[in-house]
Amino acid sequence: SSSSSTATSTKLTSDASKVVCHGAGLTKALVGQKNTFTIDSSKAGSNMLIVGVHGPHTPCEEVYVKHMGNKLYNVTYTVKDKGSYTVIVKWGDDNVPGSPYKVAVA
Amino acid sequence: SSSSSTATSTKLTSDASKVVCHGAGLTKALVGQKNTFTIDSSKAGSNMLIVGVHGPHTPCEEVYVKHMGNKLYNVTYTVKDKGSYTVIVKWGDDNVPGSPYKVAVA
Repeated sequence: SSSSSTATSTKLTSDASKVVCHGAGLTKALVGQKNTFTIDSSKAGSNMLIVGVHGPHTPCEEVYVKHMGNKLYNVTYTVKDKGSYTVIVKWGDDNVPGSPYKVAVA
Repeated sequence: SSSSSTATSTKLTSDASKVVCHGAGLTKALVGQKNTFTIDSSKAGSNMLIVGVHGPHTPCEEVYVKHMGNKLYNVTYTVKDKGSYTVIVKWGDDNVPGSPYKVAVA
């Protein structure tokens, strides 16, 4: 799983440990609602932001990642079933601090 | 980079090579437009769908992944700068066939 997407120069300046995620959507979520969290990668150099959401039996219905400027991102996702979900945030090949997040969907 | 998000049973039935992606957004894209492609994971078992888009200097402005039912997904993304971008589609830890995609943004 090499990250052939990133040039060597950007790899050297990328540090996933500097990515900071915040928000209720990293711990709890509600069926049919827009669940949100933010990702601040402004201190993490250059790399690809990767977000994934998955439940025990069903995929996520929607994931929307929007760049708000200055490498700050807003993530909105919706699910249609209750249960224990996993949210993954990666900066290139590396999980950011706290990822994978376990999210209880009620 | 272990995929602790997936149970052992689902790992055994997951096969990234069975994921099929289609659409113009995998090869060409336009600045300020909604660029799209589809992902059919109906034959690939259970895993987490992961999508990332990155340009040479700037991140993607928006990525929207929507489940259309039956494990068919529609992806829409927008970029604001021209250049050579990379689109990654992973099924769990593994790239799907063709990923990473090189996309020319004009």
